[in-house]
Amino acid sequence: MAEQKPRYYRIADEIRGRIDRGDLEPGQQLPTEHELMAQYEASRNTVRLALRRLTDEGLVISGQGRGSYVRRAHVPAVWDWSVLESRSRHESNTNGGDQWASVVAESGREPRQEVRVSIRQPPADVAERLGLDPETAMTVVRERVRFIDQEPYALADSYFPEELVRGTPLMKPEDVSAPGGVLAQSGLIQVRYEDEITFRMPTRAESERLDLPPATPVAVHTRTGYDKGGKPLRVMVTTLPGDRHVIRYSVLAD
Amino acid sequence: MAEQKPRYYRIADEIRGRIDRGDLEPGQQLPTEHELMAQYEASRNTVRLALRRLTDEGLVISGQGRGSYVRRAHVPAVWDWSVLESRSRHESNTNGGDQWASVVAESGREPRQEVRVSIRQPPADVAERLGLDPETAMTVVRERVRFIDQEPYALADSYFPEELVRGTPLMKPEDVSAPGGVLAQSGLIQVRYEDEITFRMPTRAESERLDLPPATPVAVHTRTGYDKGGKPLRVMVTTLPGDRHVIRYSVLAD
Repeated sequence: MAEQKPRYYRIADEIRGRIDRGDLEPGQQLPTEHELMAQYEASRNTVRLALRRLTDEGLVISGQGRGSYVRRAHVPAVWDWSVLESRSRHESNTNGGDQWASVVAESGREPRQEVRVSIRQPPADVAERLGLDPETAMTVVRERVRFIDQEPYALADSYFPEELVRGTPLMKPEDVSAPGGVLAQSGLIQVRYEDEITFRMPTRAESERLDLPPATPVAVHTRTGYDKGGKPLRVMVTTLPGDRHVIRYSVLAD
Repeated sequence: MAEQKPRYYRIADEIRGRIDRGDLEPGQQLPTEHELMAQYEASRNTVRLALRRLTDEGLVISGQGRGSYVRRAHVPAVWDWSVLESRSRHESNTNGGDQWASVVAESGREPRQEVRVSIRQPPADVAERLGLDPETAMTVVRERVRFIDQEPYALADSYFPEELVRGTPLMKPEDVSAPGGVLAQSGLIQVRYEDEITFRMPTRAESERLDLPPATPVAVHTRTGYDKGGKPLRVMVTTLPGDRHVIRYSVLAD
C-alpha cells in the first residue's frame, strides 16, 4: 500500500487532473514533449511513458510526429433498447424511414444509413441463435452503417432466415420501412427479444468502417427476436463505439 | 479500395488467423521477434508494428522483455440484468449471501466479496440520479470487489441516501443479505430500475483493482432503483471487464 509510485504515474495523474478539470479541453493540443520535460523536470522517456499511459486510457490521442491531443468529445447517442426496434413503434412510425431514423431525427440530429442487402450463410453464432443448420442455412442480411450528422455512429446488421422473408420488401437494397414492421406485415410478429452485450477492442475492419481513434472500445449488441411460439425470426448485431454511445434499459422489478 | 496494405498489416492478419484457428492457443507464447523476422522475412520494426497491432486489438499481451502471449481466456460471467439484483429474487434467496452470490454459486463457481462501507458525499452524477443536492447530500456507500473462483470479476458500488438507511443493517461492513431485501424490510420497495451502460478504457485504479491485462475495456453499468412514487432509492454502479463478462436482457415487445 505504501509503495512509491513511479514518477511517470504521478505526471500522468497531474495531466489527467488538468483534463478532468477542463484546463485542457477536448481537441486541444497538449504541451510538447520538450515543454512537459521542462514543466515536470523529467526525462524524455518519463514524459513519453506518462503520455502513453493517458493514450492507453483513451484520454489522449497521439499521432506520430503530430503531437498529442485531448480526445475530442462526441455528442453521445443515448439509445433505449427497451423501446428501440420494438414492433409497435415501428408500425406507428410515419416519416418513411425506420424507427432508428425517427428517434435520431426527433433529437434534432440528422440520420443517414447506407444499406447493403445480400443472401448468404450466416456466421455460426447467428445460425445458432436462429436455430438454423450452420452448414446449409441461408439468411437475408441487411448491413447498415448508421450516420448521425455525417459521422459514423454504428454498424447494424440484421439476419433473417431466407425461407421466411423470400419475396418480401426486406430483399430490397433500399432503406425499407422498418424490418420489424415489414416482418409484421408478413404475419411474422416479434413478441420478445433476448439481448446480449459484449464489449471489446474493435477489429481493424470495424475501426476503419467507423473511423475510430485508437483506444476506443466497442460494445456488440446482439438482439434475437422471437414470435409467440418461441421461434426466432431475426438476429440484429449492432456495433457501438464507446466514445459516442450510451445504452439504456428500463426494467420492472419482478 | 485497391490500395496496397502495409506489410505489417498482412503479417498481423496472418498471426490473427493462427489465433482464430486455434493454432496458437490462449496463454501460449508467440514466436520471438527473431523467429517472426525469419518466418516472414521482415525487419524488426515491421514485426514490432504487427505485434503492436494485435496488442491494441487485445488479442495479444506483450510484456517488456518477456515476449508476447495469446491473451488467456476467462470463463465469461453471463449476468441477466432483467432478473439480477431485482427485489423478489433477493427476498427468496436462502443461502445467506446476496443474490449475486447465489447466481454464481448455482453455476458451480465460487463467489466471494470484499465489502467496505462508508458514509460520504456521492459523486455529482450519483447525487443527480438520487435527486440529492450534490453540495450537501450524504450517502451510505457499499463498495464491493466481486471475485469468482478467486479472480476479480467486477466492482459493484451501491449508494443509498443516508437519511433513508440510517440505522439499518446496510450500515454494517459485513456482507449483509441483499441490499434490495434490506431496503424492502424498511418499507423501501424498488419497483422499477433505469439502467445505463457505457463502455470505455479502464482508469488506472480500476485496472489495478481488477488486475486487468492491457487493452481490456470495461462496461460501467449504472442502475437506479425507484419506488412506486418514482422516488430514487439506490444507485448501483458496476464495473465489468470486457474479457470476462456478457450482459443479458430480456425485453417484451410493446
